[in-house]
Amino acid sequence: MNLELLCKNAAAVKYEMQTLSAGQKNQVLLQSAETLIAEQEKILSANKKDMQNAVEKGMPLGLQDRLRLNGARIEGMAEGLRQIAGLPDPVGEVMEQFDRPNGLHIEKCRVPIGVIGIIYEARPNVTADAFGLCFKTGNVAILKGGSDAFYSNQMIVEVLRGVLEKNGISADALTMIEDTSRETAAAFMKMHRYVNLLIPRGGAGLIRSVVENSTIPVIETGTGNCHIYVDEEADLDMAVSVIVNAKTQRIGVCNACESLVIHEKIKDALLPRLAEKLRESRVEIRGDEQVCAVLPESIPATEEDYGTEYLDYILSMKTVSGIEEAIAHINRYNTGHSEAIITKNDARAKQFLREVDAACVYVNASTRFTDGFEFGFGAEIGISTQMLHARGPMGLKELTSYKYQIYGNGQIRG
Amino acid sequence: MNLELLCKNAAAVKYEMQTLSAGQKNQVLLQSAETLIAEQEKILSANKKDMQNAVEKGMPLGLQDRLRLNGARIEGMAEGLRQIAGLPDPVGEVMEQFDRPNGLHIEKCRVPIGVIGIIYEARPNVTADAFGLCFKTGNVAILKGGSDAFYSNQMIVEVLRGVLEKNGISADALTMIEDTSRETAAAFMKMHRYVNLLIPRGGAGLIRSVVENSTIPVIETGTGNCHIYVDEEADLDMAVSVIVNAKTQRIGVCNACESLVIHEKIKDALLPRLAEKLRESRVEIRGDEQVCAVLPESIPATEEDYGTEYLDYILSMKTVSGIEEAIAHINRYNTGHSEAIITKNDARAKQFLREVDAACVYVNASTRFTDGFEFGFGAEIGISTQMLHARGPMGLKELTSYKYQIYGNGQIRG
Repeated sequence: MNLELLCKNAAAVKYEMQTLSAGQKNQVLLQSAETLIAEQEKILSANKKDMQNAVEKGMPLGLQDRLRLNGARIEGMAEGLRQIAGLPDPVGEVMEQFDRPNGLHIEKCRVPIGVIGIIYEARPNVTADAFGLCFKTGNVAILKGGSDAFYSNQMIVEVLRGVLEKNGISADALTMIEDTSRETAAAFMKMHRYVNLLIPRGGAGLIRSVVENSTIPVIETGTGNCHIYVDEEADLDMAVSVIVNAKTQRIGVCNACESLVIHEKIKDALLPRLAEKLRESRVEIRGDEQVCAVLPESIPATEEDYGTEYLDYILSMKTVSGIEEAIAHINRYNTGHSEAIITKNDARAKQFLREVDAACVYVNASTRFTDGFEFGFGAEIGISTQMLHARGPMGLKELTSYKYQIYGNGQIRG
Repeated sequence: MNLELLCKNAAAVKYEMQTLSAGQKNQVLLQSAETLIAEQEKILSANKKDMQNAVEKGMPLGLQDRLRLNGARIEGMAEGLRQIAGLPDPVGEVMEQFDRPNGLHIEKCRVPIGVIGIIYEARPNVTADAFGLCFKTGNVAILKGGSDAFYSNQMIVEVLRGVLEKNGISADALTMIEDTSRETAAAFMKMHRYVNLLIPRGGAGLIRSVVENSTIPVIETGTGNCHIYVDEEADLDMAVSVIVNAKTQRIGVCNACESLVIHEKIKDALLPRLAEKLRESRVEIRGDEQVCAVLPESIPATEEDYGTEYLDYILSMKTVSGIEEAIAHINRYNTGHSEAIITKNDARAKQFLREVDAACVYVNASTRFTDGFEFGFGAEIGISTQMLHARGPMGLKELTSYKYQIYGNGQIRG
């Protein structure tokens, strides 16, 4: 279908969505979960086509694994939708209310954003997830998935649109852009007349392209060059445990630790113990001169290392003479995601929390907790690394806007 | 100065700004007010140059009036800064806090956005105003004013930078882009590496150009094609009073009423009385067939009329057969600014509030109240007409973002 028409049709459904009650929306989400399972053979055979193409193209095994669906993964998608159904509906919530001297009563109420575009890469489970989050918040979703998952995404969308129709809701509340070309992606980014928000989910290249080309308001997500700073007064057992967790518990994620900053006074006590643990996971260390002096097996770090999100078993290390230098280094290289300090000193903990510029700043905990589920939001559409609208984990509330509803009795302005 | 260097210098001051206390910021704002008055001769003589150029260029008298400064207007700018000094500082406020089962304590805290760019047209008072609002919220301001006010803006910025320096604060917390060419404006809009938010203040053409070209997150402001719907059960005295106020109290502003929607059942009772009042202000009426039948002196309205923000003594009128048609018409043509219903019927009032898609939706009051001061925010940088980040009047809070500060005792993710 013509892209502009598709977007126009989606926008035309916006106000219908906003009249759905929480009960109606939850019923659709629960039925969607059931139907994904009931129709799983269709979805699995569509996924088989994607997998065959992937094998023919020689896709790396790690990516093939992300693309592959099976009964358990479809059950996972269904369970995600059930969980979203169980969360409170933020739409309609009165966020604030106040009265003016002239008698006007003003209520600030949560409303859906409208039409949300999501551009993402391979994983087909994002399709059901993004639908669930957008639908629960009364938003229309336009999905643009990667070509590798084309058949899987198409079938999941077809199944979900069927559920919408059965419930008397316009199927255009969920549409997928079937043309996976770059030209269509670029044209989609210009549809600000119809689309209210664009969320890119994927690698740094995708996100940069969306930021540079979109005329639709964008929420940047995901890039995480996360640091841990070990202060001179740190509990070294805790430091080792938190660093090993943040680096190795899952390496390919945006909240993994990519760089260590160490006070020079504790480098001799910390680094050998830490290196021993990191060696167990075969983590490569790239350090400055002082680090290399203590750990001769490590590789000298370059400026580029400090700016790199490895998403791999590599950790850069930099020594500093105090907290000011640590904060300046982190504010220079971090991507606004998650940063941590390990310290027993309250004043420096507070200074770090205040002065480090990131969505989530931790004292004595792993950066891996930056996550909608870990924060108790119950769901997550992504982690915002920009300053506008939402910062950090984005759950249902972050997929809403607000309006002012104002009650008068004939007030005019003098 | 080179534009990129200017933006880089502004970004370099960002973290210094974030360490200023409310007391320090208020002192600077009060001194700025005093200094604008003490140095008013300099500012007035710079303004004289702008006025001479305006006269030579044959600028319309209305625009000349907006450009002209005098003692009273400089006192007005100073008073604006004093008022901003008197408002509470939102930075550092703990917006929410919660504990997780694993013992993590999470605080959501207000922080400055960072570097804010403001692109605006003729009025030089915006210069002091924008500085005051950005400075109070710990943000760095980069101003790009119109060429007509060049000398006035330059001198106001020079005076304010002097106050910053006297207080030991980097003057780059406020800079002005002195090159007023379109090419430089276009290049500025691509500076997302250094600038966190861009706010255009001006006509529809300026705003469209920023939305279409900026890679910096934008907040759209100001365009207001505002409607008043008169329901079949309306207090007609109230309807006349509110419509006349919303249309004529100040015509060139974004919250003025541009279009009337009338239930066909009350058109005969309302229109003659309303037209009589509107005639006193020489308001031209452009109506549909039913309106023209009741008011033969009115001009037939075209589709284009319904989509036009006149900012003039013109009012379009459309009759409808019920509230659904009224809401559909308004949601088709409104710009997301301010919309009102006049009714005595509670159910329809609620429906209108819920279903009309705009930043501010009124029952029985003039649309002219959409304003930061009227809302009690104490200050205003503009009225957002987009869904993201802030909607409606934007005061100090709307110039902030947030960060999560997380306190642990060694938590790692399992």
